[in-house]
Amino acid sequence: MSQVFSIHRQVEFNHCDPAGMVYYPRYFEMISALTERFFADALDYAWSSMGEAAIGNGTPMGRIEVHFMSPSFLGDWLELTLGVARIGTASATFEIACLGAGERRFFCRATVVHAKIGGGRSVPWPAPVRAAMTPYLIPSDETAKKTRTCPP
Amino acid sequence: MSQVFSIHRQVEFNHCDPAGMVYYPRYFEMISALTERFFADALDYAWSSMGEAAIGNGTPMGRIEVHFMSPSFLGDWLELTLGVARIGTASATFEIACLGAGERRFFCRATVVHAKIGGGRSVPWPAPVRAAMTPYLIPSDETAKKTRTCPP
Amino acid sequence: MSQVFSIHRQVEFNHCDPAGMVYYPRYFEMISALTERFFADALDYAWSSMGEAAIGNGTPMGRIEVHFMSPSFLGDWLELTLGVARIGTASATFEIACLGAGERRFFCRATVVHAKIGGGRSVPWPAPVRAAMTPYLIPSDETAKKTRTCPP
Amino acid sequence: MSQVFSIHRQVEFNHCDPAGMVYYPRYFEMISALTERFFADALDYAWSSMGEAAIGNGTPMGRIEVHFMSPSFLGDWLELTLGVARIGTASATFEIACLGAGERRFFCRATVVHAKIGGGRSVPWPAPVRAAMTPYLIPSDETAKKTRTCPP
Repeated sequence: MSQVFSIHRQVEFNHCDPAGMVYYPRYFEMISALTERFFADALDYAWSSMGEAAIGNGTPMGRIEVHFMSPSFLGDWLELTLGVARIGTASATFEIACLGAGERRFFCRATVVHAKIGGGRSVPWPAPVRAAMTPYLIPSDETAKKTRTCPP
Repeated sequence: MSQVFSIHRQVEFNHCDPAGMVYYPRYFEMISALTERFFADALDYAWSSMGEAAIGNGTPMGRIEVHFMSPSFLGDWLELTLGVARIGTASATFEIACLGAGERRFFCRATVVHAKIGGGRSVPWPAPVRAAMTPYLIPSDETAKKTRTCPP
Repeated sequence: MSQVFSIHRQVEFNHCDPAGMVYYPRYFEMISALTERFFADALDYAWSSMGEAAIGNGTPMGRIEVHFMSPSFLGDWLELTLGVARIGTASATFEIACLGAGERRFFCRATVVHAKIGGGRSVPWPAPVRAAMTPYLIPSDETAKKTRTCPP
Repeated sequence: MSQVFSIHRQVEFNHCDPAGMVYYPRYFEMISALTERFFADALDYAWSSMGEAAIGNGTPMGRIEVHFMSPSFLGDWLELTLGVARIGTASATFEIACLGAGERRFFCRATVVHAKIGGGRSVPWPAPVRAAMTPYLIPSDETAKKTRTCPP
């Protein structure tokens, strides 16, 4: 059975717009924080250790798609979960969900690339990173159903 | 021929991450600003006039998809353009592009819903808003090509 | 002895600038989050309960002063602490400190006003809120020393 | 007569909180943008040219103080102005004001330090930067009056 990585965040004043709901660009900061913790805590490959001062790699976002389902309000506790839909040579696709009070707030597919910083060439995942990512792979039949969210 | 709405933004320190490039959640703030100006300046239907103090409507994001193509750096001037791919009864899909120094930085498809604020029911576009949106409709053959950006 | 309210935050990629350090406007988001949790958790007077949908009050910032002492880097764990320097009829002054790895990252004095939302008139603190704030009052001799941080 | 540097910004949805007013941490992003343009456009010493890839200097904020006077709302046009109160060997103090519809929204004093990036030692201003800053010096009698905004 595949593992799921998750973090919990409470909706702050800072995240809310004049309509009193989470302003959607703030969700991308949460998605970024989830991904950041996944690399650091689950893969032992923190952005601070792969960055400029070190080996010069990063994991820029290649493509991201979010389907917003229901709004979140000030004070709500959110659970953000991450599973891995695909591990490529130098990229990976994550399926990210946000839950609050038992309902889905959004669903996201995000593909990051492992590359030299600054728009440089892609770099294959180090073997230990690939190995650490594998337990989070979502069984392919589950992924298939979820990905039918693209416009026909 | 269809019209295109655009704004220009310079990349600020505020937008950049430790790798010296625009941090992708900041692009969503730019996308939001572009959409905000489109409603206010092109459609004469500003968020401040439709919001809580007024008629109680908003245009929450329903779904958004961004394909990042090349990084942007501190000081770069960006042009963000918006065309309309589809006008629904109570929703609209925008095609948004970001250009810098002649190259595409990202391409985005975003579907907003016209709805009561706070997760309420959708509300058909007012006739003048629909009419003002129409000149920005992208000819269908052009849209078709661009939308083949979804995973197979 | 006076109580101190605190929260802990880890520095995220999101908070860092191209120099790899926390970008100072992000510290104000942390200060805001600290204040928000203080009202909700220590005073049982959450912003969500006093806001527009409810009794129409807020606690806008009247004046804030921050002295930055040493930089914070990606991954650092920060402790943010809040004590109350002064409780006025319809305002309060907080002393906020940020500590990381045993050193002071910044020191802040912030005065919030209890007022009708939207720039309206100030409103005296409700008695239970004032009572709940009192245990956090910093003994006056301690405050006096710290406040000599203004330019001569 | 001293010169004043200024930029104009329109309040976006992005800047506003659930009370419909500018959330004060966003003002610090505007202050940062004003300072950034001042260094780039008025002093010809852009952050991108002094940064990591180049000579390794920056202008971290040493101390900042803001007095908020009246709220700003969605769509407001703001003028942010900067004058120089003091030029030190390796620091400078700016007086920054924000005006909207003829009234003061906030007043700010900010002291930046010219230093090696990463919390390193301070570095004297290059002579051309000092010379370019001089025309923006506020006559001392004007500054004196304004600085009486600190708590007694």
